[in-house]
Amino acid sequence: MPKQIDHEKRRKEIAEATWRVILERGMEGASARNIAKEAGLSLGALRHYFSTQDELLVFAMKLVQEKVMARIKDITMRNVPPKEKVLHILLEIVPTNEETVREMEVWFAFTVYARHKKDMFDANHDGIYSGMRNLIAYLDEFDLLRQDADKDIEAERLYALIDGLALHAMLDPVRVNKDRIKRVIMQHVESICVKETNETEERNP
Amino acid sequence: MPKQIDHEKRRKEIAEATWRVILERGMEGASARNIAKEAGLSLGALRHYFSTQDELLVFAMKLVQEKVMARIKDITMRNVPPKEKVLHILLEIVPTNEETVREMEVWFAFTVYARHKKDMFDANHDGIYSGMRNLIAYLDEFDLLRQDADKDIEAERLYALIDGLALHAMLDPVRVNKDRIKRVIMQHVESICVKETNETEERNP
Repeated sequence: MPKQIDHEKRRKEIAEATWRVILERGMEGASARNIAKEAGLSLGALRHYFSTQDELLVFAMKLVQEKVMARIKDITMRNVPPKEKVLHILLEIVPTNEETVREMEVWFAFTVYARHKKDMFDANHDGIYSGMRNLIAYLDEFDLLRQDADKDIEAERLYALIDGLALHAMLDPVRVNKDRIKRVIMQHVESICVKETNETEERNP
Repeated sequence: MPKQIDHEKRRKEIAEATWRVILERGMEGASARNIAKEAGLSLGALRHYFSTQDELLVFAMKLVQEKVMARIKDITMRNVPPKEKVLHILLEIVPTNEETVREMEVWFAFTVYARHKKDMFDANHDGIYSGMRNLIAYLDEFDLLRQDADKDIEAERLYALIDGLALHAMLDPVRVNKDRIKRVIMQHVESICVKETNETEERNP
């Protein structure tokens, strides 16, 4: 079905054009006209791919989400010790390079925008919170989580920390750079985990 | 100078009308026309008080900031033990009631909007980060901070946690309610502080 593939490919290109428009002009500049222009299409051609602007925006945002999820899935497949895997996943969620900071910025602008569009897209449930619950459960499964930890509260705390760091990485990327994010996340994971014993080797300084 | 007082009072009323418009229609609906209508003024009268829309928006946002700062200052004056004071201040920053959640929402919409307005208003430096540094230093001064804590990283971690919680309180107020926020913040403060000794009484369960 080559036609179908081209259709999806074109929809993705339009989504990417949408991200660029949002980054440059904010959500208030993300009109169908501006997006069509950025994608090199007529308004009529744009409507062939997306019948409403909200349909286009929701598609563009789901694509951001899929990119993040694909990166996380990639890490979960790697054969590394549990604590290291958790650290890698957390570092993948918080944006630490130009591409991921830009993704975050688009995501953020959209989240605020969608607050005023009832039932448009449930940005509250972006999968990160349930992901944090899974990471805490995963650490616990390997007896790495401190025994006195309240798992429910630890998941909420980790989720707040991660989204706060992501927000600050976007707002102040000079101070909240990759190295600093790594130090904060490592400090946090160490503080919720039991001290290393001789059965797992110490890898991080 | 009754005339001057009336002028400032009217500017504050316009700022409050601006918040209401932003809450209802988002930043993209915060036009001079809509704000004038909400404030019950003509466009000409609005321009008498604010010569540009950006001047009005910056004024409205500084007023949000001033309200938060006034509440924090009020707590710092109270005569309570250091750790309890830190907890109270943190609970004042994270929105936990309808009024403060609305403030946060306005602040947030504005922060995202101002990203595309160079030099309009430095929302990065809203005073919260330096406040977090002060709180960590304050705990350390009273020998309450764990001795192995890296103060610089702890301030960054606390700042991320607080802003992440504020973000989630706004996006999902049902789950991230006052009680839950309190539990997360208490858990965090306990984890960065030394265990209670007999010189300070245990006040919280």
